[in-house]
Amino acid sequence: MKKGILILAVVSGILGACTPKEKGETPKVSVGNQIIEDLNSRYTSKAYDKTKRVSPEDLATIEEVLRLSPSSINSQPWKFIVIRSDEAKQRFTNTFKKYKFNTHTKNASEIILFANKVHFSKEDYKKRLDASVAAGRLNQKGYDKQLEAAFGFAKMVADENGNNGHWTKAQSYIALGNVLHALARLNIESTPMEGVDTDEIQKEFAKELGDDYECTFALAIGYHKDGKDYNRKLPKARMAKEDVIIEL
Amino acid sequence: MKKGILILAVVSGILGACTPKEKGETPKVSVGNQIIEDLNSRYTSKAYDKTKRVSPEDLATIEEVLRLSPSSINSQPWKFIVIRSDEAKQRFTNTFKKYKFNTHTKNASEIILFANKVHFSKEDYKKRLDASVAAGRLNQKGYDKQLEAAFGFAKMVADENGNNGHWTKAQSYIALGNVLHALARLNIESTPMEGVDTDEIQKEFAKELGDDYECTFALAIGYHKDGKDYNRKLPKARMAKEDVIIEL
Repeated sequence: MKKGILILAVVSGILGACTPKEKGETPKVSVGNQIIEDLNSRYTSKAYDKTKRVSPEDLATIEEVLRLSPSSINSQPWKFIVIRSDEAKQRFTNTFKKYKFNTHTKNASEIILFANKVHFSKEDYKKRLDASVAAGRLNQKGYDKQLEAAFGFAKMVADENGNNGHWTKAQSYIALGNVLHALARLNIESTPMEGVDTDEIQKEFAKELGDDYECTFALAIGYHKDGKDYNRKLPKARMAKEDVIIEL
Repeated sequence: MKKGILILAVVSGILGACTPKEKGETPKVSVGNQIIEDLNSRYTSKAYDKTKRVSPEDLATIEEVLRLSPSSINSQPWKFIVIRSDEAKQRFTNTFKKYKFNTHTKNASEIILFANKVHFSKEDYKKRLDASVAAGRLNQKGYDKQLEAAFGFAKMVADENGNNGHWTKAQSYIALGNVLHALARLNIESTPMEGVDTDEIQKEFAKELGDDYECTFALAIGYHKDGKDYNRKLPKARMAKEDVIIEL
């Protein structure tokens, strides 16, 4: 009898150790903790291990994250060029005349070029609305209304030549914030690169970018090189809450 | 002896039942699926239930997500004004002269104003570096180097008057993308609002914004109103992968 109680105690002890962890995955308080843990663990990698590649499954997730990114009036005014092959990495390396990121360009698993449409036009928006119709989101009445009202915003933020590149560029930073969060969840390291040479990229990737897309930043992804990535172990530094958050 | 084996079998059976579920949370394939599920479930809410409020715990998470957002040269050139009280919501409502978002401004649980520094200066950057020193991230040598090299970028993107607002604004869109992802994980609905009146907000929230911050967009958060939020049940529409992703 005593032994029976002991067994029960051991068993329920094990169950007790198990259950809270399982339960801990679903309540919001735990999701919140997981979010903060993810964001605290992410950092900008300073050295990649050339031998470690992002898996095809993870890359597919990352590309889908980019595609699903939210944007103003669902404009999706972007194109993402995913540089994987050595040949494409060499082409990207060729664009660095002013700044040096050569170790990333060669050692990162992939580099993603973020490009935004410079003159986001009614024709561009029609293609987005066509996708909405195809998805069963929009009927003809809604289509006409959206084309008038929603596109009016894209028009309003454009200059006299129809250039609304500053607005489309802002949208591509939403995609950046979205994918940086996803990469943290996937434990994949990354390095946003704003100091790229837009003009040189325009020349080198003219065919892929097309006429009216500009690339003003890129994102290297992959896995850090052990012992070489000094930023990995450094503590995260942010302004205090009271410096950036005001509750009213 | 037999009983001992049996106990061991029971115990390891329980452990066996427990372990796969625990493990199931961590493999990347599963995290990837969860990421895509989160992003597919998020949408822009069109009607909020005034009676449903974001919990204090979730709001604390959201504020921390904003604070932890990545930014170029760790500039954190932002301020987030979290509008919670009815009085503050009325103040925000007052700023709508051109566009109507009044139902959101009154019914959303919170509205977050995203503000960016217009002239991000060396003095501003010093405060960020001070935080890096305090966190144990940076020594004096690193401080001087960062102040020269990294701040050089903020200077380079500024005009002759030191205005680099287009760059700081882009950073605040990273925070937007980051928090939209987090909100999806928390099952909290949201509505990004680009059509806000920057000038009117500048007047109404002059005290909170201070001299050199501009607010060009806001984010309503909360819970949808049953039967009123037409966008909730509509399918998501995005361009096809081949339209936005190019692999090289």
